[in-house]
Amino acid sequence: MSALTPVLQVLDLVGVFAFATSGALVAVRRDFDLVGMLVLAGVTALGGGIVRDLVIGAVPPAAFTEPGYVVVPAVAVLLTFVAHRLVERLGRAVLVLDAVGLGLFSVAGALKALAHGLGPVQAVVLGVVTAIGGGILRDVVAGEPPAVLRRDSELYAVPAALAATLAVIGDRLQLDEGWNAAVALAVGFVVRLLAVRFHWRAPRARRVRHGQGRDRA
Amino acid sequence: MSALTPVLQVLDLVGVFAFATSGALVAVRRDFDLVGMLVLAGVTALGGGIVRDLVIGAVPPAAFTEPGYVVVPAVAVLLTFVAHRLVERLGRAVLVLDAVGLGLFSVAGALKALAHGLGPVQAVVLGVVTAIGGGILRDVVAGEPPAVLRRDSELYAVPAALAATLAVIGDRLQLDEGWNAAVALAVGFVVRLLAVRFHWRAPRARRVRHGQGRDRA
Amino acid sequence: MSALTPVLQVLDLVGVFAFATSGALVAVRRDFDLVGMLVLAGVTALGGGIVRDLVIGAVPPAAFTEPGYVVVPAVAVLLTFVAHRLVERLGRAVLVLDAVGLGLFSVAGALKALAHGLGPVQAVVLGVVTAIGGGILRDVVAGEPPAVLRRDSELYAVPAALAATLAVIGDRLQLDEGWNAAVALAVGFVVRLLAVRFHWRAPRARRVRHGQGRDRA
Repeated sequence: MSALTPVLQVLDLVGVFAFATSGALVAVRRDFDLVGMLVLAGVTALGGGIVRDLVIGAVPPAAFTEPGYVVVPAVAVLLTFVAHRLVERLGRAVLVLDAVGLGLFSVAGALKALAHGLGPVQAVVLGVVTAIGGGILRDVVAGEPPAVLRRDSELYAVPAALAATLAVIGDRLQLDEGWNAAVALAVGFVVRLLAVRFHWRAPRARRVRHGQGRDRA
Repeated sequence: MSALTPVLQVLDLVGVFAFATSGALVAVRRDFDLVGMLVLAGVTALGGGIVRDLVIGAVPPAAFTEPGYVVVPAVAVLLTFVAHRLVERLGRAVLVLDAVGLGLFSVAGALKALAHGLGPVQAVVLGVVTAIGGGILRDVVAGEPPAVLRRDSELYAVPAALAATLAVIGDRLQLDEGWNAAVALAVGFVVRLLAVRFHWRAPRARRVRHGQGRDRA
Repeated sequence: MSALTPVLQVLDLVGVFAFATSGALVAVRRDFDLVGMLVLAGVTALGGGIVRDLVIGAVPPAAFTEPGYVVVPAVAVLLTFVAHRLVERLGRAVLVLDAVGLGLFSVAGALKALAHGLGPVQAVVLGVVTAIGGGILRDVVAGEPPAVLRRDSELYAVPAALAATLAVIGDRLQLDEGWNAAVALAVGFVVRLLAVRFHWRAPRARRVRHGQGRDRA
């Protein structure tokens, strides 16, 4: 956490806002009520970080000690509640804010894991968990196949892994904490937006469907 | 825990019984076997409390130290196994017991969170998590949209939040522990039953469905 | 963990490999991409153990400290990625390796819980959670009803409970640690394979479907 300069702390709350908004929008789409919006927004924005903190033994998790982590999702839900059609139309802006959150969560998650004594590979894994865990939980609770795992989704975990890896390498090279985090975050952010723009996707196993015959001939 | 007088401890096990029964009934409805009944009953009755205890760092969670938390769900499953049609017909009685559990879990969860040093808002959140977490996990494992989040369900999280809030306020005012918990529980219980009786529901975002034209004109 | 002789450690990684492979295959079947394969493989192989370690307070969980728990699932995913049709054809072999994992995870889980001071019944429960938790999480994330809970699945949790119970009894009788674990594991393994061979299933509540009339007459 000491690596987070005030600028990074603001970006962190920007990410929380974007993640919470995406949770609230899914709740509206699934015909959930205001309680459902609050639960999905909280799970999306805070779920990945809570899992990370439980794993590294940082209890209570930051989600339950920093007031911003309660206030910002509540604001996101209220905004979405009163103006969700407007929020949906701002989809592109939310996508950009979400990419900020993706970059920051993966970097902050990896650095916090290192600070708690985890190895570099495990720190990268936890950085990715921080960044994508909330979205997976959101989709599981909403009863949808997790977007981040599907083959028709643009790269999401890959820029997160990239940002987390850069942050871990920079930490090992003892680069300046703030700059190291900022650069790693920026790379994750840019790669994510490029992936959306150019429809970059992760590879998938080539699959011969049952009943197509070719496989069975 | 010290706030729980013997009466409250009995009510706690009543709540565990009701929650476990609801899990076992969902398992029967989904064509799960006896193992599925045990898993769903355990998840429903104990899931919320386990999450709370992990978050506040009370490990092992009470679910793994108090024998009653193993015995009571097992009894609920056996009863449901041999006589689930009878149990389903007692739906109204289970609903009342469930409301006892709702009130007690939210109050006990909030007070336990306070005792572990969490702030008042976070304590209310954890009280609600204790009360509704198990039911959400039950529905997610069973592959159903969580009842508590849907717009066609009567208020459930709201009476839980109300009871937890009263308990936290009473704790701050240093009221007698037992009476404070009993009154907060009773309010949650009554509001829940009123919500069921009069079909009170949480508000939801007004939604214009895609393709209705009005929104796009 | 001290109960695990080198042989048992190898069997542990065999189990991790089998569980990870089953997760990767489900990911292919659900049209997930490489990220989805990694997530499902990791969740299946490590999810049960992570939950166990969080509950007993062994943080960071072994999944984040032992390099083999990162390397083996990654290898399983790569193999499945390049040759998943071959892997699917080896279904019977994977089933046998999975039964090794089932026996070992339940025994190791129960013994680790005992070593952390849990009671014998709770240790058996945690052994079963270690063995079946990952598969349940796999199916929940993939959006399928958990195989282990369905009535059309062969016994899976029952041999796990049997192996865990034997391990706990042996521990209480102060039998030799290595032999005690090996025998309990072997019993779980054999009972699981017999259950598959002879289609042994857990009982389920007899259910009269709504609308069949018989129940209502």
